[in-house]
Formats: sequence, C-alpha cells, structure tokens
Amino acid sequence: MGKKNKQFVEKITAMEDDFAKWYTDVVKQADLVDYGQVRGTMIIKPYGYAIWENIRNELDKMIKDTGHSNVAFPLFIPESLLQKEKDHVEGFAPEVAWVTHGGDEELTERIAVRPTSEALFCDYYSKNIHSYRDLPMLYNQWANVVRWEKTTRPFLRSSEFHWQEGHTAHATDEDASKETERMLGVYADVVEKYLAIPVLRGRKTDKEKFAGANYTLTIESLMHDGRALQSGTSHHFGSGFAEAFDITYLDENGESQFVHQTSWGLSTRIMGGLIMVHGDNRGLVVPPRIAPTQAMIVPVAQHKEGVLDKAYDLRDQLKKVIRVGIDASDKSPGWKFNEYEMKGIPIRIEIGPKDIEKEQAVIVRRDIGDKEFVALSELEARVVEVLEEIQTSLFEKALAHRTERTSVATTLEEFKQTLDEKQGFIKAMWCGDQACEEKIKEETMATSRCIPFEQEKIADKCVCCGTEAKELVYWAKAY
Amino acid sequence: MGKKNKQFVEKITAMEDDFAKWYTDVVKQADLVDYGQVRGTMIIKPYGYAIWENIRNELDKMIKDTGHSNVAFPLFIPESLLQKEKDHVEGFAPEVAWVTHGGDEELTERIAVRPTSEALFCDYYSKNIHSYRDLPMLYNQWANVVRWEKTTRPFLRSSEFHWQEGHTAHATDEDASKETERMLGVYADVVEKYLAIPVLRGRKTDKEKFAGANYTLTIESLMHDGRALQSGTSHHFGSGFAEAFDITYLDENGESQFVHQTSWGLSTRIMGGLIMVHGDNRGLVVPPRIAPTQAMIVPVAQHKEGVLDKAYDLRDQLKKVIRVGIDASDKSPGWKFNEYEMKGIPIRIEIGPKDIEKEQAVIVRRDIGDKEFVALSELEARVVEVLEEIQTSLFEKALAHRTERTSVATTLEEFKQTLDEKQGFIKAMWCGDQACEEKIKEETMATSRCIPFEQEKIADKCVCCGTEAKELVYWAKAY
Repeated sequence: MGKKNKQFVEKITAMEDDFAKWYTDVVKQADLVDYGQVRGTMIIKPYGYAIWENIRNELDKMIKDTGHSNVAFPLFIPESLLQKEKDHVEGFAPEVAWVTHGGDEELTERIAVRPTSEALFCDYYSKNIHSYRDLPMLYNQWANVVRWEKTTRPFLRSSEFHWQEGHTAHATDEDASKETERMLGVYADVVEKYLAIPVLRGRKTDKEKFAGANYTLTIESLMHDGRALQSGTSHHFGSGFAEAFDITYLDENGESQFVHQTSWGLSTRIMGGLIMVHGDNRGLVVPPRIAPTQAMIVPVAQHKEGVLDKAYDLRDQLKKVIRVGIDASDKSPGWKFNEYEMKGIPIRIEIGPKDIEKEQAVIVRRDIGDKEFVALSELEARVVEVLEEIQTSLFEKALAHRTERTSVATTLEEFKQTLDEKQGFIKAMWCGDQACEEKIKEETMATSRCIPFEQEKIADKCVCCGTEAKELVYWAKAY
Repeated sequence: MGKKNKQFVEKITAMEDDFAKWYTDVVKQADLVDYGQVRGTMIIKPYGYAIWENIRNELDKMIKDTGHSNVAFPLFIPESLLQKEKDHVEGFAPEVAWVTHGGDEELTERIAVRPTSEALFCDYYSKNIHSYRDLPMLYNQWANVVRWEKTTRPFLRSSEFHWQEGHTAHATDEDASKETERMLGVYADVVEKYLAIPVLRGRKTDKEKFAGANYTLTIESLMHDGRALQSGTSHHFGSGFAEAFDITYLDENGESQFVHQTSWGLSTRIMGGLIMVHGDNRGLVVPPRIAPTQAMIVPVAQHKEGVLDKAYDLRDQLKKVIRVGIDASDKSPGWKFNEYEMKGIPIRIEIGPKDIEKEQAVIVRRDIGDKEFVALSELEARVVEVLEEIQTSLFEKALAHRTERTSVATTLEEFKQTLDEKQGFIKAMWCGDQACEEKIKEETMATSRCIPFEQEKIADKCVCCGTEAKELVYWAKAY
C-alpha cells in the first residue's frame, strides 16, 4: 500500500492539507468535470454524467410515482414577466444572464436566461387553471438554469447547472403544505437511500428562504470538512405568486379563489455532496446504488492461459445481477487498481492463475480496503451482498461523522469556540430575531441551516441575545 | 359515428381544408404544446413530453449500445470560439441569441446561447486528445439549443428546441465515415421501428449540407400533405474542424495527425413528423411503441354494479404487459372516446354490464376504427397482438402513401406539373451543378432532399439543364 498511496499523494492533494484543493483534484482526476470556456460553466464528462444520470433516474421515478408529470418549459423569460413578483425578481435579478440581441436584431425587451422558472409556470397556470377540477396541477422539469455567479466551483456553484424543478398548484394552503413536505420527503429518501448521505430535515429561517416563498423546507448534509451543504429545498408559496400572476380557479361553489403553490428543486450540487461526504485521499467513493460500474474485474497475469477467458466468464455471469466492468487492457494491474480506486468503483474483483486453480476470486472493497477470498460458486451472491454492505456502511460512517461533528452551544462564546475546534453543526437556541441571526453570521461565519422538524429544548435563552428562546436551530459554515 | 365526427369537425380544422391549421389544432387539442412568452418558444406539455421521453429513451439506448457516452456541455459559447470555423459561424451567426450582460455587468465578450455545440466539443477535443489511444472519442448530449428564427411553428421550427447531438473524433477519415453512416442507420431504425415512419436514406447536396461539414447524410420522410421533413442528419467533418481548432493526436509512429470528426442530431422536430404522418381528422395517432398510454379502458355504464371493479381488474391484469390507463371519471363515455381519439391512444377497451355478462370486452383500434369483441380470457394476448398490428399497419400505410406520392420527372415541365398535381417526392436526375439546383428551387419551390444511397438511372440527362446527369436526386417541397 505504501507505494500506491504515495502515487496518490502526488496525484491529489491530501484532504487534511487543503480540502478545497483536494476537492478540485478529485473532480478532475476522477474524470467528473472539466471547465467550460465561459466563466463558471462546466463540462460534465462521461463518468460524472453517468453518476448524475443514475441519481436522476431514481429521483425521476419517485417524482412520477408521486403523481407528477414531466414537461419542458422555455429557457427564456421576458424581463417584464420576471418582474411580476417583487421579492422573486429582487432575489434573482442580480445574477441573471440577459439576452439582448437575436442575430443582428436588437430586442425591444431584454430576455432572461432562466435562473429558475416560477415566472413561466405561473404565467402558464394563470392561463390554464380554470376550475377546482384542474387542481392539483403537478409539473416537473429536468432543465439547465443559469445564475451569473462571481465565485464558482464545479458542481457546488456554477454559472449554469442542471436540476429538476417541480412546480405545483393546489386548491388549498393545506394541500400545498402537504406537497411541500411530501417532496422534501422524496429528496430525503433519494439522498439517504441512494447517495448514502444522512440529512437533517427542517425549515429555513425567513432570511434564508427562497425569494418569494412563504417558507422553505430543506435537507442539510454535513461534508467531511465539517461544512454543511444545502442538498435540496421545497418551497411553499401560499398564494403570493398566485396574487402577483392572477392565478385563480372557481371552487365547488362557483367562487373565485387564488391557487396555492409550491416549487422544489434538487440539482447537480448534490454531486459535490457525494464527493465531499464519501471521498478520501485515494479519490472518489461512489455508493453502489448509483455507481455506473458497481464492480470492476481486473485480471491478474492476464497473459497466462485461461485467465482472460475466466475473467470474461465472470463478467458475463455477474452482469445479470450487477453493473460490472472488466479492464483487459495492457495497462498494469497496479495502474488499474489506482484508476478504479480514484473513480470510487465500489468493488474490485481480482482473478489470476492461482485463483483459478483454487476456484476463487478476490473481492476488494473500495471504501475500507478489505480483501476477501470468495469461492467462484459463491461469487455472484457474495458480490450482491457486499454491495449492500458498502451502501449501508457508507451511510453509517457518514452518520457517525455527523454525530461526532454536531455540538451544542448555549452562549455565543461557546458557539465560536466549538465551531473553531470541531467545525460541523452547532445546535443552539434562537429567539427568532433576524438581528441575532445576522450577528451570529458576522461573528462566527456560520449561517442558520435549518430549524429542525425534531425540536429539542436545550436551553431557555437565545444563544445570541439571551432573551427567551423560540426554537432550536442548526448552524454551520456552509457551501 | 356521425355525431362524434361532427364534434371534431368543430374542434379541429379538417386536413383537406387547411393542413397548417389542422396541424396547429392537433398540437393544441391533443395537449402536446403551448406557446411560450418569448417569440417562437414552446412549452411541451405532459402528454407531448411523455411521447418525446419514450422516443428519447429508445434512441438513448441505441446511442449507448453503439458505444457512446452521454455528457453535458455548457449552454454558452464565447463569440471568439464560435468564429474559429469560418463556414460554421457564417451558417449560424444570423440566428444566434446573444447574451451581453451578466447581472448589472456588461460582458467584455458577447456570449452565444448554443445554436449547436461543435465549437465547444472541438475546443474540448483539442485539449483532451493526445494519442491514438484516446480515439475514438464518442460523446453525445441531450440538450436544448436556440436558433433565433423569424417564422416559427411548434416542434417544426422553434426558437428553442430539444435534441441530442453526438460529437465524435476518430483517427482516420474512414473511421469517421463509418460512424457517420452508422448513426444515420440508428436514426433510420428508431424512426422506422418506433415512430413507424418510413425514411429515405441519402446524402445532402453541398448546398443543403451542414455549415462546416464535408458532407451530410440525412433521413427524409414524407408528410400527409406531400411535403418532406428532414428527420435526422449525420455530418462528416473530415479534418476541417480539427484544422480550425487544432485537434491533433500522435499516431502509432509518433507523428502528429489531425483527427476526423462527425456530428449527428435528432430533435423534437420529429414530433412534428409523427403528427403529420399518422394524424387524421380526429386528431393525433401515436404508434404503440412510443405511446405513453397504449390502451385506455373506458367503463360503460360504470354506475352499474360490478362494472368499475371489473374495469380495474382488467387494468391490473393488463398493466403487467402494456402501458394501460383507465378513465373512471364522471365524464360521459362519448366525451372520453373523443378525448382519447384526439390524443391518438392506440387502443380503447370498452367494458360494460353486457360485456361482463358475456365475459368479453370491446377493443377499438384508433387508426382504422375497427371494433372487435374479445373474450376476457384472451384479452391480454389479443391486446398485445393488436398493438403490434397497429404498429405494422401504421408503417405500411405511411409507406404506401409515400410510394403513391413519389413520381418521376425527366423534364422541368414534367417536374412542375407533377409536383402541382401530386406534391410528394419527385425523383429526377441531376448534373451536379448548384445552378440547376437553385433554378429548380426558384421555379418549383422544391429543394433537393437527398441523393439516395439506392441510386437508379431513370434518365441520361439533368432534369434542369439537359447536360449529362450525374446522379438521381429526390426533390420535394419541405418543412
């Protein structure tokens, strides 16, 4: 292991030395992303895209299973339409990319490249919803959006990113609330069960909510360096957008009512979470359920008679139950081991002449490096089992890390000190006053991540001002 | 049938009266598309998007099976990058939407919203291809592109449309040629086998080829009104882009060589083809293999005891083998019949008290209106069979229509007269001179659709100038 590790130390920066550099090294060396020509844009390469496709496919199924339909709304929003909801345009206008010319012609009105699509869906709903029979309207789209960011990083903050955005309209405020919660639940499910990332579920403070929302629900996860990542949000709009866009329906009594809306999104940002939760100094670690290749067969001494034949036999056998690859190229086994470790392929299967003689193969787990000799007759069953073990183990390890990095603070002094020492989440009581929230951010660089659904009363007083506390908040420095 | 037909005559214009109006009526009434707020943009609604998703899923499988990887390249191209290949920028610059501002900041260089992505892929290839070992590089992306069109129609010509664009780099010209042909074959397959649209395979003339291509291969199909639709194109670039973007590799002898490239695309335009090939005066007709709902169960006299239970039983049984829906709403059976005919659902299954008594159901074919009584014990097998019959029958009907509408002309007079009388494809010999091609277009409004792979010598002389003919060309008025 010594030599191999050394190669990697040269190839990627150690996490402990420079986490940000480690991140960009992994993104690059695991072949996930390259930089586009326009500032902050990214090229998602085949391996990165294959992971995203797997996440997308699982989430898409869940979105359809909960009754939503996919649609494709335009990329372009006229400026006047974007301006209809005041808070919304204030939130997004500073980062809009503006189209001003079509060919040689100067446009009479500027066009926004969508930073998010509420305005377009609201405009559509205002024309297409007439009666209570039209409700709920449950739309989703997989799309690219553009936000002109000053500082960008692949996946985490890019000028263009990919996401799905759900937009729904309901008859009552209560229906909209249920939808907001239900879709947060779907996000929590896909992130916990497929990406093996434990999440906190809660509500954003008013300061941190979506521009134009009544309230925003969020799932928050903790990265290896102790910083938090907002991993998916679900917004309740009440009738705010409906009033701005005049979206009404006739109820069962023939009376005109405003609809109640939600929107919710999960983006390629989560790829950043995946890297920073599971990755290590040998590179990426991909949870089996979303791994494009779940096991890679590496023949050893493949020039010896029968090795390649056996390796291909195993591939053909295993591909009926898992996503399996084989590397029979003339590169050295050592090179191959490093390459697939860097790419985070969950299992490596080695098979050489001695193994064939003993009717066995070697399974190596990417996450903990364990080596296991398995009889060929049991390989298929054991590989499936080990993939499940890895999936569970990644989740548990991430959960243990979050638990270890979650602290309690009852005074601002303690808050600062704990954050300096341990990073991670700080649980602290809050009076509900935005002034305190801002002061905490100013003094600690931590922001409120969420007001968790699971409330605890860990003190009576606000951690900042000492007046009566209203609720528990999770705080952290965040991406 | 009389009354029902009358309702539709009121709902959509008859094809014979105004084909263009019929088309937009179907697009709207079958719930495929709505208009966006920015000129020429479209909202693809749930039903339209579900059909597109089915086409996309089949094509995506084929693209992956032929060894290509999906990626996501940026939406934005700096103007200077777009300008690197002279023919290419001349072809696309007049229809580029330009971003000039990011938030409040005026950009130092204008940014094109991609009209197509050759420039970005070439730039990437120039940086990422080093050795013959890196080749071939076989990338594909599903993306939205923008072309600022003056006259637009849903699906057929929209300012923003959706497509996949493949971009590949190869060691030799021959490898690139094989790829160009192979991907045209994939397009022909998906369009013929899934969309049930027969296609002509051939090469575009130089006048009609892609801006920057060495040559362009195309599949061309014939619409119900006798106009042609370019349905998918595959471009061979030779080393033209490689020279402009400096994309080289070291061959096995260590010598630097330019790569040879291709690109190929199939877009939401094909949805227009689907409508105009199979649709009729009762609306859309969707081929079973891409139909989101292959059969719709409509209970008759559903208030009677046992009807709904039986209908749901059938649904549960059929959903194991086909994509089946049920409409148990309180709308009248007549309304439902009309609605699902308009949407082109291949099969309607009626089940009422009398049917239950006789242990049968009624199958109604959307395409030809045939009604068939089927014993419930045989329903599952028969529905699957009928779906295949419809798929085949749609293709054969479209092929017969194309054959009927394909004529031969040996003089320009005959060309004009036949085109006036029959529309459709005109097969005529051509000398290869662009002047003749332009003259034909000027005098007949027909453009060269393709130089078919299957050549015939129907005359010795060019249909236009009378000098020695070089090859057979299919001509038609086109969308």
